Amino acid sequence: MTDFAATKALFHLPQGVIYLDGNSLGPLPKSAATRVSKAVSDEWGEMLITGWNKAGWMAQPGALGERIGRLIGAAAGSTVIGDTLTIKVFQALASGLSLRPGRKVILSDTGNFPTDLYMAEGLIKALDQGHVLKTVAPEDVAANIDETVAVLMLTQVDYRTGRLHDMNALTAQAQGCGALTIWDLAHSAGALPVDLTAANADFAVGCTYKYLNAGPGAPAFISVAPRHIDHIAPALSGWLGHAAPFAFDLDYRPGAGIERMRVGTPPVLQMAALAAALDVWDTADIADVRARSIELTDLFVTLVEAACPGLTLASPRDGYARGSQISFAHPDGYAIMQALISRGVIGDFRAPDIMRFGFTPLYIGEEEVRAAVAILAEILESRLWDRPEFKTRAAVT
Amino acid sequence: MTDFAATKALFHLPQGVIYLDGNSLGPLPKSAATRVSKAVSDEWGEMLITGWNKAGWMAQPGALGERIGRLIGAAAGSTVIGDTLTIKVFQALASGLSLRPGRKVILSDTGNFPTDLYMAEGLIKALDQGHVLKTVAPEDVAANIDETVAVLMLTQVDYRTGRLHDMNALTAQAQGCGALTIWDLAHSAGALPVDLTAANADFAVGCTYKYLNAGPGAPAFISVAPRHIDHIAPALSGWLGHAAPFAFDLDYRPGAGIERMRVGTPPVLQMAALAAALDVWDTADIADVRARSIELTDLFVTLVEAACPGLTLASPRDGYARGSQISFAHPDGYAIMQALISRGVIGDFRAPDIMRFGFTPLYIGEEEVRAAVAILAEILESRLWDRPEFKTRAAVT
Repeated sequence: MTDFAATKALFHLPQGVIYLDGNSLGPLPKSAATRVSKAVSDEWGEMLITGWNKAGWMAQPGALGERIGRLIGAAAGSTVIGDTLTIKVFQALASGLSLRPGRKVILSDTGNFPTDLYMAEGLIKALDQGHVLKTVAPEDVAANIDETVAVLMLTQVDYRTGRLHDMNALTAQAQGCGALTIWDLAHSAGALPVDLTAANADFAVGCTYKYLNAGPGAPAFISVAPRHIDHIAPALSGWLGHAAPFAFDLDYRPGAGIERMRVGTPPVLQMAALAAALDVWDTADIADVRARSIELTDLFVTLVEAACPGLTLASPRDGYARGSQISFAHPDGYAIMQALISRGVIGDFRAPDIMRFGFTPLYIGEEEVRAAVAILAEILESRLWDRPEFKTRAAVT
Repeated sequence: MTDFAATKALFHLPQGVIYLDGNSLGPLPKSAATRVSKAVSDEWGEMLITGWNKAGWMAQPGALGERIGRLIGAAAGSTVIGDTLTIKVFQALASGLSLRPGRKVILSDTGNFPTDLYMAEGLIKALDQGHVLKTVAPEDVAANIDETVAVLMLTQVDYRTGRLHDMNALTAQAQGCGALTIWDLAHSAGALPVDLTAANADFAVGCTYKYLNAGPGAPAFISVAPRHIDHIAPALSGWLGHAAPFAFDLDYRPGAGIERMRVGTPPVLQMAALAAALDVWDTADIADVRARSIELTDLFVTLVEAACPGLTLASPRDGYARGSQISFAHPDGYAIMQALISRGVIGDFRAPDIMRFGFTPLYIGEEEVRAAVAILAEILESRLWDRPEFKTRAAVT
């Protein structure tokens, strides 16, 4: 059984803050500060260029990918980190389309994170080969899977509502029609058990700055099922995905296996933070995290519905049907969230009217849930949110 | 006049090392260690998600791009940082081809860095629209510019020999034939004066971990001439290049100007190092750096040729015809470079037989040049390099 008091002690949590936004940016693992400082001073500073070998920088994308792969049930040697989630979506999509040359439909849903849809649009336009992006309501995905679909691209957990897709069932259905699947695990990895192997998923991508706590701008990951990787000619054929990057051949030859999904020089300082953040999982079990998350989110829903009139639950009521967040809708959600933040309860807002609260048992417990609801109730009762300073939209919401 | 003793004091240089590899990875600016630590502990640690606004993370790619833009003569508001140089090459190429729909040739040279050529190959294959990559010898580029060329893509300074292309002349010639130009400034930015505006260049890309000293895996940059930017529909249409990323629209609309060349979440920790590294240029003038670099490289060539028989100069003898490096060829170049590194003189090796030595006046002076040559001469005379341990190839050369 995971000792959540022990995991909480691994994080730096600012005084006076109840942090319910780990679904957007996880907090600082204390060891990450040390690890990054070491990468800067002892590695970059002292080893200089020799750090690529001596400090093992060059091998890190594969090694870190492997550690993430174990958290999401990926086959050994099928996961690598690098770039951003947006770029990894592009790689997966370009690969998927190339493996289904006769088909033209990318099927997704309106609950997918916009950058995934934007990347599909950009790829389709650049290819100019008659592909279309078909976007349906989340509950209509299954009904729209047919033989025209090249790739089914979904984010497992809806970023606004937390609604959870059935990865196993949709993957099986898509594959039954000859389509491939891309699962975006942005809100899944580190939040709930994922088993890509059991689901027989084709591609998975995700970021590491949410529930994996690797810091702002942390690198992303991509997993490709071993049955596909040798058949992929990467569209983003960068030198570090080459079979022999330091031979400096003039022609591209894809690297062995998942290494070919590497692109350019990996972000060494961000990788140091990621390495430290992944150490947390040496002491935490994802099944325990999931069970505790459902308890905490259920409690939050019960308490809010009892104490906070005017808020409408926007997440599935069934804990097993959602990720590790709870969303409530309110027409003045933006201002209410700003008022909450001013009182030390940090969640976030997603247009048009969604207040999101993420619950990460690694550092959030029942005490924080009760305290957050008490503050929310007080803000609503006092109408604290109804002030001009809480209504001015910031650049980043 | 730049005070090079003062700029040298801004860097951490390990004891007993003469660092002649700043053309591959610049050394640690002392202030970068402090700045990164602040980004980790004071920003990520204390501000958490609010750092995107409070610490200005979201605006940093444009602000840092602007500072780099000033170093390379880019128009105001035409440069942004992010991703890796490899990705930025892809963006520039995809944009360039889309602006010249009737033309099919990407012209480059065999002295271009392989990842640039690989990305062209990958793009061409993905597009499947009949484009070809034509790669000629560096000295034959001008003779191969004609009306079939869509994009002329060159690295200004040859990564092996240091040979410098004439950016102004080749750009004018290419544009005279209706082609667009992409200049890779990997070995130019921070090494020599570049004036993209005077050259009328269409696109420029570059990395920041070489002569800009921003650390291993530092983000890249892209500049797009203002006359083009509004006509570009980005192939990598990520959410942070969207006109309103936090509106979470389902459809992509490109952001204003150069902002559309942003893709995903920027690497906040690496940006902190870059911000500190760029401060060095507040006290250094690039014209002074260039003049001193030519003095130092000329001195190095003279001393090596006098003291080190068996080495063949692989760089242009004329200082104005090369970048800020000197390359010498030797059949046992790999082993000789390993022996040099074992004696504290760090350069690097590029297959098949090139030893590269980078000279960065910001922290390298005449004393280091003389000491390095003395050690090189001693290694050659004693045949120290002729030992098995210096002949085993490392993963990264």
